[in-house]
Amino acid sequence: MWLDLSTGVNPWPWPIPGDLPGALWLRLPSRADEENLIAAAREAYAIPTGAEVVAASGTQSLIQWLPQLASDGPVAIVEPTYNEHAAAWRMGGHEVIACADFDELPQAVRYAVVVNPNNPDGRVISRAVLARVAAQLRERGGWLVVDEAFADIEPDVSVVELCADLPVVVLRSFGKFYGLAGLRLGFAVASQDIARRIALVLGPWPCSGPALSIGTAALGDRVWAGHTRVALQTQARKLDAVLSEAGFAIAGGTGLFRLARRADASEVHASLATKYIWCRRFDWADDLLRFGLPAGDGEPERLAAALGLLR
Amino acid sequence: MWLDLSTGVNPWPWPIPGDLPGALWLRLPSRADEENLIAAAREAYAIPTGAEVVAASGTQSLIQWLPQLASDGPVAIVEPTYNEHAAAWRMGGHEVIACADFDELPQAVRYAVVVNPNNPDGRVISRAVLARVAAQLRERGGWLVVDEAFADIEPDVSVVELCADLPVVVLRSFGKFYGLAGLRLGFAVASQDIARRIALVLGPWPCSGPALSIGTAALGDRVWAGHTRVALQTQARKLDAVLSEAGFAIAGGTGLFRLARRADASEVHASLATKYIWCRRFDWADDLLRFGLPAGDGEPERLAAALGLLR
Repeated sequence: MWLDLSTGVNPWPWPIPGDLPGALWLRLPSRADEENLIAAAREAYAIPTGAEVVAASGTQSLIQWLPQLASDGPVAIVEPTYNEHAAAWRMGGHEVIACADFDELPQAVRYAVVVNPNNPDGRVISRAVLARVAAQLRERGGWLVVDEAFADIEPDVSVVELCADLPVVVLRSFGKFYGLAGLRLGFAVASQDIARRIALVLGPWPCSGPALSIGTAALGDRVWAGHTRVALQTQARKLDAVLSEAGFAIAGGTGLFRLARRADASEVHASLATKYIWCRRFDWADDLLRFGLPAGDGEPERLAAALGLLR
Repeated sequence: MWLDLSTGVNPWPWPIPGDLPGALWLRLPSRADEENLIAAAREAYAIPTGAEVVAASGTQSLIQWLPQLASDGPVAIVEPTYNEHAAAWRMGGHEVIACADFDELPQAVRYAVVVNPNNPDGRVISRAVLARVAAQLRERGGWLVVDEAFADIEPDVSVVELCADLPVVVLRSFGKFYGLAGLRLGFAVASQDIARRIALVLGPWPCSGPALSIGTAALGDRVWAGHTRVALQTQARKLDAVLSEAGFAIAGGTGLFRLARRADASEVHASLATKYIWCRRFDWADDLLRFGLPAGDGEPERLAAALGLLR
């Protein structure tokens, strides 16, 4: 039986009620269903007045559409990061300029993308820097995309408050923090103008009935969210302890995954795979591995044992 | 309590198992999940070798993307029909030329769209005509889109067999025939070249875990499909009898809805609404109404009574 530590999905999902109304599957979602979800998202993500929220069947579908909505012009992407951003912008005909940070925004770019906190290293670019970049891009008629897929664990990192006044599109993933990646639900937060264009290209009924209902209930469950933040951070520290003991240096991460460095990371990856433990490696660094949280019965011990044998 | 006859969704849904595996909600759908669904769709829709199938979160999301994938050039749409096609092509920057049929394909067009059988009138354009149109559009470097949202009830109408050799994109809706519109699942069938471009723009994980699992099982249930075709056609004839008795002329339709003509259709629509029965009217014809199938306990009688009082 595989222990899959290759994802950044919360292993302790929000508990879906056993008695979902059958009508959620049968009828097309209504406008009221969608409005209820948006209201819950506004509250959970502390969306300011003047910014709007658009729901989609997963953040990925928004990543696919944004470059199509954009006018011509290059995009700067802070890398290394989740590689679907660059793929989508290239497919949309944009030149992609990789950069290590936003200290100097390349002169040519009209758009910029940052995952914040970043995947896989957890690096956070400050709100002040992002506001400056967004203001520069506004001058050039472009936008800043801030993918906050992993911001739920550290809500203070979110820059949704910038969306009302600056051309900032914040992406929020539902499935990762709520542990329901199969549900397919994500959000874009942006000014009214940008949000309405996103809603138009998505078209009617982008989200399933169950996604609207479960999303509304889960986003409204602030007690669960509070407990879960603490539990994930605690578990992440336990994972750090296991990795450190196994000779890794913790190189970053978020409450949903840890990035760890060891010179022989490639061999560790291969060795863990022989023990049916799957973590993530990177083609741009042979000394790094990313581990999701082992959380089920005996999982941390299983990882520890598998790593212990390697020392 | 409203009786909603404004949709074309089967009121007798495929029965979702009560014991869906929880993992469907939790983890990202796997490639195997998607391959199983595609295999079931190939079988159910009789997809020929040489054509490929792409799954999406509802046909609507494919309708939104197709005009973006298309090169420049006008599109001919056989109207009146489902109005989201024209909206999406206009949004994609294409000139939309409405036409009554394909007897003469406008010279200027590079693309064409037909809903077959058509919504709302059930009109069917023959496979021979569609093959001729597709061949003409191939000469112009374009495609033909055939939206078969209502073809499940009359599978012989389907032109999926054209997809292997001609630039034909067939759209198949899962939710209407299977009565699961809230699930959000639909398919595009096309040549390998076009299908791969569609898959690329949709990106990874377009469908939810439950949609992949339920879709796979339902599409594999040929016994249910056979019974359901008969039951829907029988119920459609019963609805025709009620409408005829109420002074309507049946103007067309499919096994999932009927189009009915009566000079005072607007007043009938308003009167039914006062009795909490909702059917569909059209802004391009004040003598037509579209009725979905009344199927629950007492629903046909309720419609008959409401219409009887109007005579």
